[in-house]
Parts: sequence; C-alpha cells; structure tokens
Amino acid sequence: MLKIYLAGPDVFLPQPLQRAEQMRQICQAHGLDAISPLDPLPGEQADVLASLDPYVIARRNEAHIRDSDAVLANLTPFRGPGADPGTVYEIGYARALGRTVFGYATVAADHATRVRALDGSTATADAAGLAIEDFGLFENLMITCGIEASGGFTITADTPDRWGDLSVFRRCVAAAATLLLGQPAIPAAAAG
Amino acid sequence: MLKIYLAGPDVFLPQPLQRAEQMRQICQAHGLDAISPLDPLPGEQADVLASLDPYVIARRNEAHIRDSDAVLANLTPFRGPGADPGTVYEIGYARALGRTVFGYATVAADHATRVRALDGSTATADAAGLAIEDFGLFENLMITCGIEASGGFTITADTPDRWGDLSVFRRCVAAAATLLLGQPAIPAAAAG
Repeated sequence: MLKIYLAGPDVFLPQPLQRAEQMRQICQAHGLDAISPLDPLPGEQADVLASLDPYVIARRNEAHIRDSDAVLANLTPFRGPGADPGTVYEIGYARALGRTVFGYATVAADHATRVRALDGSTATADAAGLAIEDFGLFENLMITCGIEASGGFTITADTPDRWGDLSVFRRCVAAAATLLLGQPAIPAAAAG
Repeated sequence: MLKIYLAGPDVFLPQPLQRAEQMRQICQAHGLDAISPLDPLPGEQADVLASLDPYVIARRNEAHIRDSDAVLANLTPFRGPGADPGTVYEIGYARALGRTVFGYATVAADHATRVRALDGSTATADAAGLAIEDFGLFENLMITCGIEASGGFTITADTPDRWGDLSVFRRCVAAAATLLLGQPAIPAAAAG
C-alpha cells in the first residue's frame, strides 16, 4: 500500500494520538497507509516515543518522510497568516526527495488577503514595510508552486472549526488517492 | 569559491536589490560567493527577472539551492512568532539535498517565549488550545535540529532594527566561513 506522511500542527492538538488515528482511518478507507509523526519508525520500540528529545524527533520525522511515497500537509494558518514552519520544512524536504506533496487548509482566503488583514498592513506592504506577495496563491510561492511541481495540489475550504475539522482533510485524501492510485473520483457513468 | 544561497524575507524589503548587494559584499569579504533569490540562473538573461511568474521564481530558487554548497537563512520572526514559510521551505529543501544550512535572526527570544507572548496564550498552549513546543530552541524543532544535523548552526541576537540590521548576518557569515573554509575565527597568536 502507498505510504503517505501526515505533516501538520495536528500533533499539537490536545488529543494528538486520537487525531492521528482518525486521520489514519480516513487514509485507509482510500487505500493509503498513513504515517504519523507520532508513529515509531520500523523496528523502533513504541515506547521510545515517550522520550522527548527534539533531535530524535526531528531525525525520526525526516526518516518517516524518506520512507513515504507522498506527504499530505496541513497548511491551515497557524499563529499568524502562514502555515506552521515545522510543516513547511517537511514539505521542502519531501519536495527535494521527489515525493508527491499535497496541501490542505480549513481556511480559504489566499496569502495576500490574510496578510492584508494584519494590523498595520496596506494593500501592498505589512506594518514593517515588507512587500506582500500577491499572486493569488494560497501560500508563499515556494510552497504552493513546490507542491504543484511535485505533482500534487492544494485543497482549501472555509470551515467553522479550524483545527477540529477533518472534512477538508478527507477531500484531500480522496483526491490524492485518485491521483496516486488511479481511482476515478467520479464513476464514468455519473460523470457529465 | 564556495557558493552560499541567501534565503530570507529580505526580498520583500523596499530596496531588495540594494540589500542583496550589501549581503553579497559581506559574503565576499569572508571568501564566500553569495547567491541571491534575485540573481538569474547561470545562462539565464538578467531581464527574465522582470517576468514575475511565481512558478518560474519557485523553480529558479530551487535551482539556486541545488547550485549552492550551503544556505544561510534569515529566521527573524515574520508576521507572527515564526520564520517566513518560504524561507523554511528552502531550509528543508536544502537539508534533504545534504547542503549545510545556517540560520540567523535579529531577535533572541526562543520559540516558546515568542508563542507565549501571543494574545490568549497560556504557559503551555496558544489561544486555540494547541500545545506550545518548549525545548528551549529558537525555532520549531524540525528547523533548529535540521540545521544542526546539516552541520550548521543558528546565531541570534536582539537588535534595535529587526529588518534593517545586518550585524547578526555578518556574524553568521563569519562563523559559517570559518566552518566551511577552515579559516580560524581567532588568529592562533591572539587566542587564549
């Protein structure tokens, strides 16, 4: 089964293991084997996860990405207008290794719209005078264009529960499975 | 000469070309050949830079990183407590390719301290209830530990001019040159 790494700040939610299990089941239902940052590596004892050494965690997550065929990344704006930097690091890492990367977010406004909403921003610059990138993309161009160049895509939708919602994740998994596994999203008889 | 790619939101400053030139001269003084995101690729005409196609820019920056021996990344908190996501993407990309990565910032407070200063944060979680990673690191563990695993390091200091300052950049270039080129930071006669 194709392995897909689940990148995102979901690990910071109050019940991260429960969340990972919900996400894993959604992936499984679409024929994909999910790898969570909270999973041990193959051959690693599960109890090593109790050891919170940041260097071990970082190396484990990089190894998870190398072991995966694709990455599904939660790009929901995190503590500001942009995505979680830890997640974005993993996107760049996966992209350099030729993995297919998919992004999703529970907020639909594009990058420029989100930055313009910050205190002190004008139409073209933020409060510090730094220019606002405005290509109509969901994220900084490195991220959105990197995802597309990898063969993936970004799916976004406004939802009432930014961190609890799994409906956009589910849509992204379904679309990623269609692309990766060649499953038709719409049965031919129903299309058109 | 070793080539070092300058990642950072400096490209959004009001005079980005002037800034890139200042940074290039600092690198040159330390024996390093700087590559700016604003440079054309080898063989590319300089006037292609006038074409603002985000897909072209993203592919060019990835090519610049592949052409470089190391990456120097501006991690100064950007529109929130974390680094610019575009910069972080480039760090992950460089790390996966085995490039040495260095980080610097004109703010010294660590990741947890910066997140706790946000409206609604407690000692352990942000306003949305997401846990605050607290390992005493400057950035999310993927970034800080990824930089260290690459062979590099992060240098930070509080400065009065977050985006104008180049003193921390200069210190980082000097230390990176010492590491990459084997130049002693302190002449033997002056040491000890």
